[in-house]
Amino acid sequence: MGLPISEMLSTEGKWFGRLGDAADSILSTRVRLARNLKGMRFPGRALEEELSGVIHRVENAAVAIPELEGRPLVQMAGLPVLQRQFLLERHLISYDLASNAGHCGLIFAADESVSVMINEEDHLRIQSLRSGFHLDECFAAASRLDEQLESSLEYAFSDDFGYLTACPTNVGTGLRASVLVHLPALVLTRKIKKVLAGVSQVGLAVRGFYGEGTDVLGNFFQISNQITLGEKESQALLNLERVVRQLLDYESKARDMLLKDAGRQIRDKVMRALGVFSHAYLLSTEEAIGLASAIRLGLTLEMPGLPPVEMINEILLCSQPAHLQLMAEHEMSSEERNAARAELIRERLSHHAAA
Amino acid sequence: MGLPISEMLSTEGKWFGRLGDAADSILSTRVRLARNLKGMRFPGRALEEELSGVIHRVENAAVAIPELEGRPLVQMAGLPVLQRQFLLERHLISYDLASNAGHCGLIFAADESVSVMINEEDHLRIQSLRSGFHLDECFAAASRLDEQLESSLEYAFSDDFGYLTACPTNVGTGLRASVLVHLPALVLTRKIKKVLAGVSQVGLAVRGFYGEGTDVLGNFFQISNQITLGEKESQALLNLERVVRQLLDYESKARDMLLKDAGRQIRDKVMRALGVFSHAYLLSTEEAIGLASAIRLGLTLEMPGLPPVEMINEILLCSQPAHLQLMAEHEMSSEERNAARAELIRERLSHHAAA
Repeated sequence: MGLPISEMLSTEGKWFGRLGDAADSILSTRVRLARNLKGMRFPGRALEEELSGVIHRVENAAVAIPELEGRPLVQMAGLPVLQRQFLLERHLISYDLASNAGHCGLIFAADESVSVMINEEDHLRIQSLRSGFHLDECFAAASRLDEQLESSLEYAFSDDFGYLTACPTNVGTGLRASVLVHLPALVLTRKIKKVLAGVSQVGLAVRGFYGEGTDVLGNFFQISNQITLGEKESQALLNLERVVRQLLDYESKARDMLLKDAGRQIRDKVMRALGVFSHAYLLSTEEAIGLASAIRLGLTLEMPGLPPVEMINEILLCSQPAHLQLMAEHEMSSEERNAARAELIRERLSHHAAA
Repeated sequence: MGLPISEMLSTEGKWFGRLGDAADSILSTRVRLARNLKGMRFPGRALEEELSGVIHRVENAAVAIPELEGRPLVQMAGLPVLQRQFLLERHLISYDLASNAGHCGLIFAADESVSVMINEEDHLRIQSLRSGFHLDECFAAASRLDEQLESSLEYAFSDDFGYLTACPTNVGTGLRASVLVHLPALVLTRKIKKVLAGVSQVGLAVRGFYGEGTDVLGNFFQISNQITLGEKESQALLNLERVVRQLLDYESKARDMLLKDAGRQIRDKVMRALGVFSHAYLLSTEEAIGLASAIRLGLTLEMPGLPPVEMINEILLCSQPAHLQLMAEHEMSSEERNAARAELIRERLSHHAAA
C-alpha cells in the first residue's frame, strides 16, 4: 500500500513543525535502537519467508501500541522510487532501505516522531526524532516504543553482551543517538577541523547532513555516539550531551569573534544569501542548503529583517527533490526541480516579507 | 577655485538625468573636437607661461558664450585629488587631466552637456555628451561651441590637412565620436568577439567603460571613430551610426536566441543580480557595474519587477568612488566605500520597491 502523501505533505502537527531547545544551532535530535528477534537469522542472511515472517510479527506487535494504532505498515517492495526517496528526505528510512526493494517495511506515527524500520540491517530499527536539542525526550520516546514492542516480541539478547545485532558495532545497547548541529561560525573562523578532531577523540562520530557517508552541507554536522558495548545508555547520552554543549559554547565564542573582526563582511554574506534565496529562479538543493545556512547564521547573530528559523527549516524540508515532485504530482528533471525549488522559496519568503 | 560640489551632486537638470533614444542599449553618446591655437606650441612642448596664456585666452573666449556664461574656469592645479577624480567619473575630464596637476583647466555648462578641457593633449578639447543614441545632436552641440569659441580664437588649421593636433591620429577633423553600448546578450551567446572584430575592420575602435585603456566592465563597450584625416565629419558620424545600428540589431537577435534557448537561466541570472544588488552590504564598483548590467539585460527583455533604467544609470553614476566620498564629505577606505555604495543602492532600490 502507498503512502498517505497529502497528509504527509502538510507540516501541521509534525515533529519538525515544532521548535525545540537551542533551535538556532540545533536542527534535530535523533535516537535509534537496533533490535533483532530471538532465534531468527539477521536480515542479510534470512530467507524471503523468514523476512516476511519478521514483518508480520512486528506489524502485529505494533497494532497494540497507541502511537502506531491504525498506522498501516508501508511495504518497501512495490513502493514507487519517488515515495521511497520522500521517506528518506523525511529521515524515516535509511539509504539502504530506500534502495532495497526487498522484504522490508516501515511503520511510523502520524506526527512522524517515532517509527520502526523492519528488515533494514537489523530486524527492527526503532527511531525517535525531535526538533532542537532533546536527547532525553528522544531516548524516552524510543525506549517506550521499544518496551511496548518487547511486550509481544522476544528480542535476541545476551546477558554478557546485551542486544545482539547484525553488525558488531551495534551490539550492546543498539543505541545510536545523534544531534544535527549547525556550526557556521566555527567553519568561517577555520576552527572546525580542530574542534571536530576533538569530538572524534572522545569516541563520537561526525557525519554530513543526510547521515552516514554523506557530505557536509551548509555547515550542518551530525554528531553521534559510536560505543554501544560496555557503556550504559545513560552514559552514552550524557557524553554526547556534554560534547554538544561544548560545541555550542565554541560556536558561540566563534560568533563573537566574527562579529568583532568581520561584522560587516558577515552581514554582507548573510544579506546576499537572503537576496539570492528570495530572488533566484533556479536553485539546486546544495545551494539552497548553503544559503539557508548563511541566513541561520544571521539569525543567531540577531540580524534584523531575516525570516524566522521555523520558516528556513520548513523550506529546507519541503524543497527537497522528492517533496517537490510529490507536491507537483509529476516527475521533474533536475532543472525543473531547481525552478520549482526557487519558486517555492520565493513564495514562502514573500509571505514573510508581506507579513 | 573649487568645484560647485553640491550643485553637481544633484542630478536635476543634468544631461544624464534625461533618457535618450535607444536608452535600453545605449548609455550615452559623446563627441569631442580637438583644437589648438594658432602659433602656440602644443601643451606637451609649451612653457608654463604659454600654458597660462592659453588658459587665459580660452577663458576669455568662453565668457561670451551663453551656455558657459557665469561658469567659472576650474583650474586643475590645486584642485583636490578627490574632486579631479569626481570630474573624471562625470566624464568631464580625462585620466591625463585628472593626474596632471599642471597648467590645465576645465569649463563646463551647468547641465554638463558641453565642456572644454584646456591644455590636455591639445589646447582645447571641446566635448558634448547626451544620454542614449544622439550622434547628430551631440555633434551639433560641440560644433556650435566650437564656432562660438572660434569667433574669438584663431585655430591652428592647414588647408591641406585640416585642424592640426598634438597627436597625428587626431589631425584633420579632430573629431572623436563615441557611443557607449550595452551588449550583454552578445557576450552571453559568445558572439561578441566576432562582432567586435568586424567593428575594428571598418575602422572603428572598441574600448572599455571608462574609455581609452580601460577594461570592459559589465558588457559596456565604447565604440568610436578612428579616422580623422581625409574623411568628412558627416561621413565619420554616418559610418559610426550605421555600425552601432548593426550592433543593436545583432544584440537584439542574440536576445531572442537567449530567451528561446535559456530563458529560465537568464531570468535566474537577472533576478539573482537584483537580489544581490538590493541586499548586499559591501559592493565594489566592478561588481556593482556587473550587477547593473544583468538588471539592464532583464529590462531589455521586459522582465517584470525590475527598477527602471534611469534608476540603474543614476546608481552607476552616483556610486562611483569620488561621488560617494564627496557625498559623505570625508575620505573613505576601499571597504568603507564598498559599504557606502551598497547602502546607497539598497536605499534607492527600496524607494523603488515601496513606490
